[in-house]
Amino acid sequence: MAVLYHHPLDPHSRFVRLIMGELQMEAELVEENVFERRREFLALNPAGTIPVLVEPDGQVVPGANVIAEYLDETRGLALADRRLLPEDPSGRVEVRRMLNWFHVKFYMEVGEPLLNEKLFKRHATNGAATAPDPGILRAARSNLRYHLHYLGHILHQHNWIAGDRLTYADLAAAAQLSAIDYLGEVDWSADETAKLWYAKLKSRPAFRTLLGDRIRGLLPAGHYTDLDF
Amino acid sequence: MAVLYHHPLDPHSRFVRLIMGELQMEAELVEENVFERRREFLALNPAGTIPVLVEPDGQVVPGANVIAEYLDETRGLALADRRLLPEDPSGRVEVRRMLNWFHVKFYMEVGEPLLNEKLFKRHATNGAATAPDPGILRAARSNLRYHLHYLGHILHQHNWIAGDRLTYADLAAAAQLSAIDYLGEVDWSADETAKLWYAKLKSRPAFRTLLGDRIRGLLPAGHYTDLDF
Repeated sequence: MAVLYHHPLDPHSRFVRLIMGELQMEAELVEENVFERRREFLALNPAGTIPVLVEPDGQVVPGANVIAEYLDETRGLALADRRLLPEDPSGRVEVRRMLNWFHVKFYMEVGEPLLNEKLFKRHATNGAATAPDPGILRAARSNLRYHLHYLGHILHQHNWIAGDRLTYADLAAAAQLSAIDYLGEVDWSADETAKLWYAKLKSRPAFRTLLGDRIRGLLPAGHYTDLDF
Repeated sequence: MAVLYHHPLDPHSRFVRLIMGELQMEAELVEENVFERRREFLALNPAGTIPVLVEPDGQVVPGANVIAEYLDETRGLALADRRLLPEDPSGRVEVRRMLNWFHVKFYMEVGEPLLNEKLFKRHATNGAATAPDPGILRAARSNLRYHLHYLGHILHQHNWIAGDRLTYADLAAAAQLSAIDYLGEVDWSADETAKLWYAKLKSRPAFRTLLGDRIRGLLPAGHYTDLDF
């Protein structure tokens, strides 16, 4: 069986888990604390980042975007008209543009600061208590409002983020949002269109694994597993 | 003719210029100062980042990696056995892994701090003089030594970064190094293997456009255009 090195609340790992869910691909999940800089893990991926997929034949695939392209090339065609990366160059540009939007811009402006302050800081300091920085939290929350409205704006134009069908772009956005939704950071009342889109995604079988995640010492927000919010 | 919005010393833009050179694809180069947040430019790419490629038919392609995939899909096949992204899934993983290595890790640890401190700070503050932070320069230079040795280590195993032929990985690495080489920041004597590889790349016709760049008020290092260093 394939192995995925991940962290339950890492949005990029969650993105890959959603892809594997859509592909109905089984993999053993191994939790990796990247702050430990484990020698065996660095041998797999010298960049020291998660997620990393290891195939049964030993093929190592590091990085969310690299894994997404790889899974599309090796298994994506089997999804036929439900393929998560469109066939035409223009559609592929749009999906990849939105992937970058969520994996880079959204993550840097919203996900990373919130997750760092509320959770990863603890990993990095080996459990030493460090209080979240209120200025960083405030800035990230303000960025989140802007991003939710942009998402709503896009979803007014078409049913899914990159057009009229589900693609990697939706999975990337949902993965990012789901991680901070666990922290209770998403005010879904701020944008009804975004909320309806997220409810659709949350009801997909692929999402179930994410909803079952529990972090020690950090319970999810009350509505986290509620499919109707 | 296609248009590329870029900055002469932005490594990600340079990567795309190298690809276009290898494809013998002509494009008009338009210099974009992203710190101005020009309304017309944000309409092309809401993320506000360079490079952005605009095709004669109006297709907008934002982001270095997205452009690389797009150019491979639309023009790359014409290169036949000199195609810059290999055909096999495993080869593609390695090229994309190294692309991320240079575009994300190298850029964050070396290129961005050096370019910010020595050049972009000036753009961001609208020309106001701000001295480089010596601590940031020192850390970036120390990271560069580590990266040069890793590059040399890889190039001991095969002639090119991702295997036995030139790929996007080499162009990404060369683009990153060329930008800080302009600043005189690369001590090529630190790794002979890396130096020989860079000399090979520098001699390619695709590289000529980069060697002709001149930034107002900032002359390139003496060896910048010297094909034999």
